[in-house]
Amino acid sequence: MHSRVQVQHVTPSVDCGRYAVKAVAGDEVVVGADVFREGHDKTAAVVRFRGPGDTDWLEAPLRLDGNDRWVGAFPVDRVGAWRYQVVAWTDHWASWLDAVTKKVRAGKTDLDVDLEGGAQLLERRTVPAPARGRLAEAAAHLRSDEPPAARVAAAADPDLAALLARHPERLDPTFGQELPLWVDREAARFSAWYEFFPRSEGAVVEGPGAPRSGTFAHAAKRLPAVAEMGFDVVYLPPIHPIGRSHRKGPNNALVAGPGDPGVPWAIGGPEGGHTAVHPDLGTIDDFDDFVEEAARNGLEVAMDYAIQCSPDHPWVTEHPEWFRHRADGSIAYAENPPKEYQDIYPIDFDTDDEDGLWAALKDVLDFWIGHGIRIFRVDNPHTKAIPFWEWVIDAVHADHPDVLFLAEAFTRPKMMQTLAKVGFSQSYTYFAWRNARWELEQYLTELTQTDMVDYYRPSFWPNTPDILTEFLQTGGVPAFKLRFLLAALLSPAYGVYSGYELYEHLPRHPGSEEYLDSEKYQYRPRDWSRPDSLAPYIARINRFRQAQPALRQLRTLRFHQVDDPAVMAFSKVTPQRTDPVLVVANLDVHAPRATTVRLDLWQLGLDGVGPYEAYDVLTDTLYIWHGPDNYVRLDPSAEPAHVLALRAL
Amino acid sequence: MHSRVQVQHVTPSVDCGRYAVKAVAGDEVVVGADVFREGHDKTAAVVRFRGPGDTDWLEAPLRLDGNDRWVGAFPVDRVGAWRYQVVAWTDHWASWLDAVTKKVRAGKTDLDVDLEGGAQLLERRTVPAPARGRLAEAAAHLRSDEPPAARVAAAADPDLAALLARHPERLDPTFGQELPLWVDREAARFSAWYEFFPRSEGAVVEGPGAPRSGTFAHAAKRLPAVAEMGFDVVYLPPIHPIGRSHRKGPNNALVAGPGDPGVPWAIGGPEGGHTAVHPDLGTIDDFDDFVEEAARNGLEVAMDYAIQCSPDHPWVTEHPEWFRHRADGSIAYAENPPKEYQDIYPIDFDTDDEDGLWAALKDVLDFWIGHGIRIFRVDNPHTKAIPFWEWVIDAVHADHPDVLFLAEAFTRPKMMQTLAKVGFSQSYTYFAWRNARWELEQYLTELTQTDMVDYYRPSFWPNTPDILTEFLQTGGVPAFKLRFLLAALLSPAYGVYSGYELYEHLPRHPGSEEYLDSEKYQYRPRDWSRPDSLAPYIARINRFRQAQPALRQLRTLRFHQVDDPAVMAFSKVTPQRTDPVLVVANLDVHAPRATTVRLDLWQLGLDGVGPYEAYDVLTDTLYIWHGPDNYVRLDPSAEPAHVLALRAL
Repeated sequence: MHSRVQVQHVTPSVDCGRYAVKAVAGDEVVVGADVFREGHDKTAAVVRFRGPGDTDWLEAPLRLDGNDRWVGAFPVDRVGAWRYQVVAWTDHWASWLDAVTKKVRAGKTDLDVDLEGGAQLLERRTVPAPARGRLAEAAAHLRSDEPPAARVAAAADPDLAALLARHPERLDPTFGQELPLWVDREAARFSAWYEFFPRSEGAVVEGPGAPRSGTFAHAAKRLPAVAEMGFDVVYLPPIHPIGRSHRKGPNNALVAGPGDPGVPWAIGGPEGGHTAVHPDLGTIDDFDDFVEEAARNGLEVAMDYAIQCSPDHPWVTEHPEWFRHRADGSIAYAENPPKEYQDIYPIDFDTDDEDGLWAALKDVLDFWIGHGIRIFRVDNPHTKAIPFWEWVIDAVHADHPDVLFLAEAFTRPKMMQTLAKVGFSQSYTYFAWRNARWELEQYLTELTQTDMVDYYRPSFWPNTPDILTEFLQTGGVPAFKLRFLLAALLSPAYGVYSGYELYEHLPRHPGSEEYLDSEKYQYRPRDWSRPDSLAPYIARINRFRQAQPALRQLRTLRFHQVDDPAVMAFSKVTPQRTDPVLVVANLDVHAPRATTVRLDLWQLGLDGVGPYEAYDVLTDTLYIWHGPDNYVRLDPSAEPAHVLALRAL
Repeated sequence: MHSRVQVQHVTPSVDCGRYAVKAVAGDEVVVGADVFREGHDKTAAVVRFRGPGDTDWLEAPLRLDGNDRWVGAFPVDRVGAWRYQVVAWTDHWASWLDAVTKKVRAGKTDLDVDLEGGAQLLERRTVPAPARGRLAEAAAHLRSDEPPAARVAAAADPDLAALLARHPERLDPTFGQELPLWVDREAARFSAWYEFFPRSEGAVVEGPGAPRSGTFAHAAKRLPAVAEMGFDVVYLPPIHPIGRSHRKGPNNALVAGPGDPGVPWAIGGPEGGHTAVHPDLGTIDDFDDFVEEAARNGLEVAMDYAIQCSPDHPWVTEHPEWFRHRADGSIAYAENPPKEYQDIYPIDFDTDDEDGLWAALKDVLDFWIGHGIRIFRVDNPHTKAIPFWEWVIDAVHADHPDVLFLAEAFTRPKMMQTLAKVGFSQSYTYFAWRNARWELEQYLTELTQTDMVDYYRPSFWPNTPDILTEFLQTGGVPAFKLRFLLAALLSPAYGVYSGYELYEHLPRHPGSEEYLDSEKYQYRPRDWSRPDSLAPYIARINRFRQAQPALRQLRTLRFHQVDDPAVMAFSKVTPQRTDPVLVVANLDVHAPRATTVRLDLWQLGLDGVGPYEAYDVLTDTLYIWHGPDNYVRLDPSAEPAHVLALRAL
């Protein structure tokens, strides 16, 4: 039999089902599909779904939302690989009832044949024994002497409809495409990261013993303060031995001095490679202790996973075939012509020993997973083979579905999207370079209102060891406040690179985005206890993130109208459209601005509620607002934004 | 080996390749794809394609258009089923040349190893014998003593690049999805249709002998006038015997009088069914003569294909199983509850004899194809099984790829789109109800700027026997002029229902869209020679359509800014952006309007050309225009629009 019911345009879907949609455990996954058939008959539809360990499909109903679009949702309650599929069929009973109801309304009374037809529909239904009596009764009533209108009204009984819905008759089920869905733990979407270099903690840079590296033991003492600032994840640049050949000196000097520590991403030396700990930092046991101390402070440790080697990495001699050789036989160091990186050998994914290479690369991940690591920030994945990422993320997830991978790919958009599609749990973004209102609104709209929201989880970083933006160089304290709260409130996942709280803002030279005396090339111990540190501000905002359920969301982000083009207003709500959070930010850090914000109250779940509270968490101030239009004045020298929890009075 | 090159988002594509894209013989099909890979290596791509009878793939190049989007085009020169596919691979030579060029520009001179690498790339290329010398020469030059910059410049020789492109090295070819494409003859996209009822031609409605049907012989005498008006296709409502049971009378009277002819769509009687000719019209030979006369006048005949039967159709007794039976065993007549159509029995596609039914329905088409018919206007396909349409259109095309099917489905948009997807060559649209500027612009933008343009060919009808719009009822002669030229100039395929040229505008009753004394229920002979007939106007516009290549296009339609919201300006150009046609229409038929039109000159191919001609074909007037902004005044009592051929001076 040919399928008469159309099932088209099922969402969410990534590249025609080639890649998995992403969700987080606890989500309701909203599904839509175009469902219709020829003629006047009605259709019905469900989404069926199954998760890890399910022996059969479960189902959730879809309802008609207009214009042949059917929508519904199903819950995902655990991490792992899920599948879902829309099923639709002709609902003969609903068709019959609709037709005969219209006739009654038009005043027709000669309906015995129609009602007999309805009785026959009921009699052919297959239902369990307890329900057969009800159907027989309903069929008999349709054949009775009661007026037709009364018989039709009885047939429309909601309990009867519910009974029939529990035992649907699907004579012509049509199946949409079976689609893959990957469910992560909540940290994949919602987490606050703090990046710091352990080697700077306790490092000695002048006086006797200088220069001397910090250690894991020292770095562990920093963890309570990081937890107090409200972070969830501490992310460490590579902690492995660093090569000596062509080691870089401070400020990327081509030649290192005797005590210079080199760049952590130039991985490998006589002491070992990707599965070794830099001896200056400590032993593997010291690392384990550090991870445990983090856990005691409620922090996860994220490691840097960088597929590249210094010239001194053991693999260079053990597996020369894993590296590309130039025409003269020498190994090709990293290049982005004309730039050269003599301290790095890139891995050659065209190697004949693909199996050996891929296995070794996965072994590195497994080694650190074995030491309790469940998060990897991956360095420049866009210069490594995409099929490798698709395989290794999937292979790791088969044993450890709770592992998260953050893609650090600052590159062209379609590559960034593809890395997310093949499995990266989170991705860095262009956020650092989106400062004006129009570009923030445009970018966030792309991230939240296109299908990117189904597979690309943004992580917003106002700074990284490679990125000190002009905005931060010139904006002063207000810029640091502003960019921090934008990262933490626009995106549920975000991070900062340590030193941010001390307003580090000097570039290597004018026009550069590199830090002066960058920690990539030298130890940078700091006085974290400076009284003007941004740490309390960071803590306040992280507490607000934890307290406000709307801030765990990305999809519900909406922008509101503001008269002043330099003032931006955005909100989030829960999926049920409750607990609204509104942020009004003056993006001009050099001058106060006063303007009117014109809110879409329906988006906030506040339409028609009368006056409402607007509680500003930054200043602990309560405002009472009325209606959509509200006056704001924001002086960056005080606070560059209002961060408001709204509530109907 | 894993594919390192990404090929994504190939366009055009309909529903992930489930349905064929449409084109017309003579087109260049524009293809796009996202093509990229990791790292700095370059990619190259082609689209390969094959048409009916091709024993192997042909190829056309794609070029990078920015942001990883590659575009190109391939020609389709004949009707039938084609396939196309994007192929991409790593271009190692281009990668090498790009890298070494950047080094030269950065002032590097120590490049012997790089140049040796280039020589080796050339030496490993497989080329036919005549080309080997050139490659060996190029390799030797790379190894020579010349300065590196000179050696690199020589390697960038365009002839060498062309030679290498003719013999590409594809070590890692990646294939996008193979996609289907159906190519029709040009009439599928570009044709002007004239609908008339043969039974009215020569009909006698009063006096002796009345009522008496017109005949094919009489109707054939109308054909020269239809050809003179510039039409390509004459479309005939059903010409088969009409049932007597429950025959409708004039103005849809429930009961017919003795001489009333009934509705042509109530097909079938003792005289035969879908393969018979109504005896009042003549014999099958008379029909053949009519078709030949049409051909002599440069006209094709389109027949109405309506899958339904009167109660007297032979199939009712021969194949009762092809009809739905009610609970009391009687056959269900057509209904759209609460409306009832007792003169029509719908076909039941749920029949157990699906094979027999489908075969018989196809036999009907084959019968008329055997009598020279190559176009079918299909009545209400949205109430018939979609799988049947997909099958029968495909089956007919297997033997007669030049057959066209027009879907008359005035229904919900997704069904209309699906009928086009499953193969209908053209589709009626919502045009009749799009009268204001904003709704015309919105609708035409949907038709031309979404993927609908890849599979949905609109046919614009300002009137049909079922549709006499309020706009025509109240707008007078200017409305008839305006709606005709909008249909004929906005859409390459359009049609009118006869009587339009005589401004027939009386509805059955106020608020109705039915014609008074509709030809569906009675004979309507007319005096075509009325001096105020719109026929000369129609002829002038159809001549303009034939003369202007831009008017054969749909995709190039663009709207221009006009200050007055009731004045609309649209243009078309050829695919090469030449031969611009501009229409400026006053959509307010009750009052003159003067305003400024602000043209996008680049869209018209007229940017930077100085003064240009604007020749108005309606008034035979030549204007000289300058720049983008031009004043227009349009008095509907004169002409409601300017219809302009533009040309640089």
